[in-house]
Order: sequence, then structure tokens, then C-alpha cells
Amino acid sequence: MIERTYSDDITAEQDGETVSIAGHVHDIRDLGGLSFVIVRDREGQTQVVFKEGNDEDLFEAANDLGKEDVVRITGSVKASDQAPGGVELMPSELEVINAAESPLPMEVAKDIESDLSTRLDNRSIDLRKPEAYAVFSLRSKLVNAMEEWFDGEGFRNVDTPLLSQEGAEGGAELFPVVYYGEEVFLSQSPQLYKQMLMAAGFDKIYETGTAFRAEAFATSRHVSEISMFDVELAYIDDHHDVMDVQEESLRHTLERVSENATDELETLGVDLAVPTDPFPRVTFEEARDILATEFDHVPEDETDLDTKGEKLLGEYFEEQGHPAFFVVGYPDEKFYYKQDVPGDDIASRKFDLIYKGQELSSGGQREHDIETMSEYMEDQGADPENFHFYLEAFRFGIPPHGGYGLGIDRLVQKVGELDNIKEAILFPRDPDRVTP
Amino acid sequence: MIERTYSDDITAEQDGETVSIAGHVHDIRDLGGLSFVIVRDREGQTQVVFKEGNDEDLFEAANDLGKEDVVRITGSVKASDQAPGGVELMPSELEVINAAESPLPMEVAKDIESDLSTRLDNRSIDLRKPEAYAVFSLRSKLVNAMEEWFDGEGFRNVDTPLLSQEGAEGGAELFPVVYYGEEVFLSQSPQLYKQMLMAAGFDKIYETGTAFRAEAFATSRHVSEISMFDVELAYIDDHHDVMDVQEESLRHTLERVSENATDELETLGVDLAVPTDPFPRVTFEEARDILATEFDHVPEDETDLDTKGEKLLGEYFEEQGHPAFFVVGYPDEKFYYKQDVPGDDIASRKFDLIYKGQELSSGGQREHDIETMSEYMEDQGADPENFHFYLEAFRFGIPPHGGYGLGIDRLVQKVGELDNIKEAILFPRDPDRVTP
Repeated sequence: MIERTYSDDITAEQDGETVSIAGHVHDIRDLGGLSFVIVRDREGQTQVVFKEGNDEDLFEAANDLGKEDVVRITGSVKASDQAPGGVELMPSELEVINAAESPLPMEVAKDIESDLSTRLDNRSIDLRKPEAYAVFSLRSKLVNAMEEWFDGEGFRNVDTPLLSQEGAEGGAELFPVVYYGEEVFLSQSPQLYKQMLMAAGFDKIYETGTAFRAEAFATSRHVSEISMFDVELAYIDDHHDVMDVQEESLRHTLERVSENATDELETLGVDLAVPTDPFPRVTFEEARDILATEFDHVPEDETDLDTKGEKLLGEYFEEQGHPAFFVVGYPDEKFYYKQDVPGDDIASRKFDLIYKGQELSSGGQREHDIETMSEYMEDQGADPENFHFYLEAFRFGIPPHGGYGLGIDRLVQKVGELDNIKEAILFPRDPDRVTP
Repeated sequence: MIERTYSDDITAEQDGETVSIAGHVHDIRDLGGLSFVIVRDREGQTQVVFKEGNDEDLFEAANDLGKEDVVRITGSVKASDQAPGGVELMPSELEVINAAESPLPMEVAKDIESDLSTRLDNRSIDLRKPEAYAVFSLRSKLVNAMEEWFDGEGFRNVDTPLLSQEGAEGGAELFPVVYYGEEVFLSQSPQLYKQMLMAAGFDKIYETGTAFRAEAFATSRHVSEISMFDVELAYIDDHHDVMDVQEESLRHTLERVSENATDELETLGVDLAVPTDPFPRVTFEEARDILATEFDHVPEDETDLDTKGEKLLGEYFEEQGHPAFFVVGYPDEKFYYKQDVPGDDIASRKFDLIYKGQELSSGGQREHDIETMSEYMEDQGADPENFHFYLEAFRFGIPPHGGYGLGIDRLVQKVGELDNIKEAILFPRDPDRVTP
């Protein structure tokens, strides 16, 4: 490896020591006989001070530098109250490892707000901004913290297929694939496979995977290729067991990143609240009552909460100290949710988790009785022929089970307080974008 | 949650205590007035002894049980040298949670060898076999151990897109997708995106993801949808830095599973050797010399080692105590590998890792000079138009870098000593199979 020290590992205590840094030239301030070169690496920035009269060759080489050149600089650490981070480097060696063309298609150093489309067109430049890297470093730590909780609880991670011929819920939202001359489809969700693994006795599983949604509308919340964190567990009493898992794992995840992603959160200007109280669990009816009573808002579709409703409920619960809460018992749900259980007083055992005013995940207890589910399928016009292999899995012993799917991109968006979900994705895909 | 104890948590020390178990009925042995019911859960099996004359209702209920019924049984633990695992359960309560139809499409308990195609057709039954679950529990632990090493070394996990319009290496092996009326392709490899992130200064990344290969041939080593573990790192001196990362991470991974997957390895009958010595790094020429001299084998394609060659080299090095070794400097390599570096004495900085006689990964140092790479592209007939966004990433400062992609399915196959790669995949896809 090229020997070097990350910027944030250089401290004032090292005053007088020789270190090497390597990174992109972030900015250059030429003050005549004095030139400040800011070198940026993944972990921060270091100011390097080139002075005329010290070493002429070195000073000239510094004058030839351009923004975004990749350089390695060796020098002596100097503690300095004026320098950003309290240290600067007095250089003795400069190597240009790879020169950048100029002009750049986009500014990295200057605080010029580019529109999102320009940023995404030039993503390998855009991602150089400290705020952009912070998003993806945060994302990495969020996913790791989530997986850590499930690993600790004895869940096994699984990989279910993305290509399938059967098991699709709706034709319109599917991407067709030409598979050796046949038409198959990209997965919208691993749910049916997760349930088949419950039949197989896998008991507790999670999957960090990809799902595809051919939704043609462009909003700040939708993309066509999404990252999903899916969970399924068996031998549950009811949907509350599933909510318990989601609540504890999300609390752990937020706790962990509030501890180990402090730099990233600071760069993004986020003061992350970790919910310590139990997440409220309100019924669908209660949620609609709150909207009507408190906000005079009645979502048009009687079987759902709309985007505005979720946002208002989010504000309502956030004010009471609850950034996250569950809405339980949606009516008119998909055939695979357990419905109308005597004594439940709710329409279905389906729940949504709403976090910071937006739906973060959907889940619930599944119907595991094949007769009942076949009836639901019929009621909803789902063709059992399209679910042959799925139904087969319910014939030979399947324990009661439930689970949920959480949108990773959306979690990153909400935790990082990003305007658009596309900022939470390295190379987002939407109806108008499949490159870069 | 339904209260219960996993089978392998019940020990002879609990003699006389009351416990509940829950799982599938694995087997039933009816000896007239005595009936042994074996209940299987994820972690093992428990023998339950039903005796005529104790509790008539209970005995009758036990007689009505069928294989693969999902049950919960409460009873008193009895230490017994005759019982498998040293304990059996004297039941006081039996609940059938979900009954299985009979006959089963496939045997679970009996050691009848089904052919792989029948097994995959009935995967949610097939996966109930302890050996099948052991494979996927092992797989989960292998991936976790691998990620653990990279997390500890400051690598960030990333998600690159699976749908793209550009950047495809070869047309024939691609699956086309109909994307809002346009033709796009499923990813064969995240490599180009990984390299773009090196340009963006991400420095050290890994990705646990999916790749697609439209290879029409059916072998025990090929599938159409594969799980990949991809790595990329910047500021390397040369390809040896990349091999160091691969070597250390693989050693850590094998060490960890040899400690924490002892049950799984035992179930699979695997005695896992953890390579402690440095992995040999032989040049491509040396590898061909060994094949010619030791085995009188000359692979037909002068620019490659064939499957037989890899197997023979595997035996050669395994005999010397090296289950894993690198072959370095393949000639005629893809345009993105650094080639013919003065002083290297090798054709390219591309390497393969061969583990237990099979290629597990390919990688190397990438060419990061855009002029040189453009020449290579031209030489190899790759159309720069198809790589527009990729080439753009090389114009504005990119550090030297390299990486590799490791086949997760293949790693599981080799560690688990499975005949066919499809046994290492929950729901494998090949030219003849996209269901279940």
C-alpha cells in the first residue's frame, strides 16, 4: 500500500513529525508567494502550506497543481490554531499520482448547489463532496448495525432469487426479462420465498437485498431499483411479535450509529434522536380518528392513509417524543396477511412502521392456513396458477409466521435528513435514468 | 412468541424439568403400545416417547400424527443413554399447530437419495433435511465472517445498481430487461461501478450482491444468478496489495467458521482446514510449467488454465499443505487490468485465487491511466461508446486501485464440500429452471 495517514488521524500532538498524506486536491488558494493546497481524503482534509523561497522546485510544482489531481505529499506536521483542524503540513515532497483534466464538469470544493440531475449525471465527481461521502458511510454503518442485531439474535441471512416466472402480485409494476428466450420477471419482494423458508423450518431469517418496482411516477420518495431489508420469523403468537423484532432492531440500529457515526451525522448536520420509549402502536381506525380530530384531514381512500396523513401523524407523534410508531390493522389487505381474527378488533394483522412522517416498512402476520388463503386469493382475483410453487409450500406443515420489509434507501434518507431518496442511493434508477 | 426450547438446548442435566418443544414431526416409530415421535427444529431433533396406558387421549392424538405436521409438545425431560442426544421427552401436552398433507412429495427423514432436480422442484421440503439447513446456516456464517473482517479494516459496504444501459462487456452473456419501453441489461459484475467509486475517493469498499450470467451451458459449477462478494481498494502499490486483502480476509473467514459453525461442518461431514501459511503466489508461466512437468497436461488455450488444470494444480498445492493459492499474470486479459508493467516479468497484473482446485475469484490491479486503457479497449474491440460514463470517471483524478470478485456460492460449495453449486443456493437459476 502507498504509505499515508488519513487527514483526521493527524493531530496537533504530532507537531514536528513527518507524515505523508494522499488524496484529491480539494482546493487551492494562491496568495502570491504563499499557496495553500487543501488535500481531501475519505476521512477529512489537510491544509498544506507551500512558500516561495523555501524549495523553488516544490513551489513551482505546487503552482502547477489543479483541482482534483490525485497527490501524495510528505511533510512536517505543524500545530496551528488558524488551520482547519488545528494542524497544517509543511511539505518536503510532492508527487502527482494522477492528474485531473480541467475544467471540472462540476465544482467539488465550492458550495454551489447543483441540481440533483446534474449531480447524478456526474456522480463520480458529485460523490467527492464530504456530505455525499458522509451519506454512504452512514448507510454502511446503518446496515451493519441492523445486521449485527439480527446476527446476535440467531437470525440467518439468506439470498432469495431476483428472477422468477411465478409469484408476481401485479403485472403492471413488473420489469420483464428475456431469459433464454422466455419471459420472466424481476423480483418486487422476497416475501413469498421468505415464507417458503418458514415452511422449511428456517425459523428466523433476514435478507439484505434488491427489489424492483416499475412505478412510472417520479417523486422524491420513489425509485425503480431499491435496497430492502427483509425479515421473517416463525412460531409467533401474532403480529406483535413481529413488531417487537422491528422495534428492537431499529432502536439498536439508531443507537449504534448515534455512537459510531458521529462524524457523518455532524457533516450532515443531523441531531439524531434515539427513541427510548416503546413505539406507540395505534390501530388504523385510531390513526384516522387522530387525523380527523386533530387535523381535520380525511384520507380519500378509506382503506389507507395517504402521504399527507402519514406526515401529519408523524408530526403528531414526534411532538409526543415518538419519531417512530406503528399503525396496525389495515383493511382490505393483500391475500397473504392474516385477516379478521376473532378478538382482534382489527381488520387485518398488517402493520406499517412510520418513521419521521414516512412509511418505512410494511409487515404483519401471514395467513398460514392454505384454505383460508386460497379464499382470499379468490376474493382478490389473484390467480392461484401464478402462485403454484408458493401454495405448495403450505401443504406440508408450516408454522405460524410473520415478517416485514424495510426500505434501506428510505431509512438512510430519513436518518440523514435528505430531501430526495436518490441522494441516499449511489447510482439511482428511475423512469428517466439508467446511467451512469 | 410461542414458548419453546430448541432441541440442542435440552440437556441431560435438565432431567425431570418441564420444557416445551415446537417443530416438524420428523419421524414416527410405532411399536404397538409405544410410539417414538421425533420432532425436528432448526437446531436439532428431540425424541418424544408416547406410552399406551399413561394418558389415553394423548396416546391417541400421537397415533394421529403424520410426518411433517407442525407440533408443540410439552413434557418432562428424561436423561437416557439410549435416546439420540442423551435425552428424551415424556409428554404431557400435544398441540398440532398445522397438519401436513400426506403423502409427502419427497421423503425428509429417510436417507433416500433424490436426484437434484426433484430436490429443487420440492425445495421447501428438501430444505428441511438437516444437511440442507446446515449448508445455509454455514453460508450465513461465512458471509458474516467475511463482512466482519472488512468492517474491522474500515471498508464501507456499498450497493451498486443491477440495471444498466452501458458498461456491458459482452452482448451474448447478458439478460435484456424491458425498462419503461427501453432495453437495458442485468449486471454481470459491479466492477465498473466499484472503480467509479475509487475515482470518487471511497478508498476501500466491499459489496455483497448479485450478478447475472446468461451462460447457456449446464455444469456443476455454473448458474445464471450468482451471489458475489466484491472488493475494491485504492492507493495500492500493485496487485500484491489486493492479494494480501483477499488472503487475510479468507483466512479470517475460514478461521471464524471453523470456530462458530462446528455443528454445521459436522452435519456436512467436513473437516475444515484453515490455511495458516502464506498462500503461494505462482506466475501463470510457472503454473503451466507445473502442469506440463508434473502432470503432462498442457491446457489448449495458451492464455488460460483449463478446469482440469486448475484441479491438478489444486491437488499439487493441497499436497504441500496449501488449499488456496494465487496464479498471477494471465496474458491477454480484459482492458481494465494493468498490463506489461516494466520489471514485473508477467503479462498482466491479473490474478485468480484457486481454492480446493477451483477458481474462487478473479482480480488484480486496474489500469487507471485513461489513455492506456483506451488503447487496450481499441485492441480488444470494445466500443468506448458502451463505456462512456465509465471512461468519464478516469478524467478527473483517480488513484491507483485494484480489487476482485469472489463467488459466494462457489465458496459455500467448496467449504461445504458439495457436489453441485446448486446445493449451495436456496433457489438456483439455470437455463432450465426459474421456479420455484
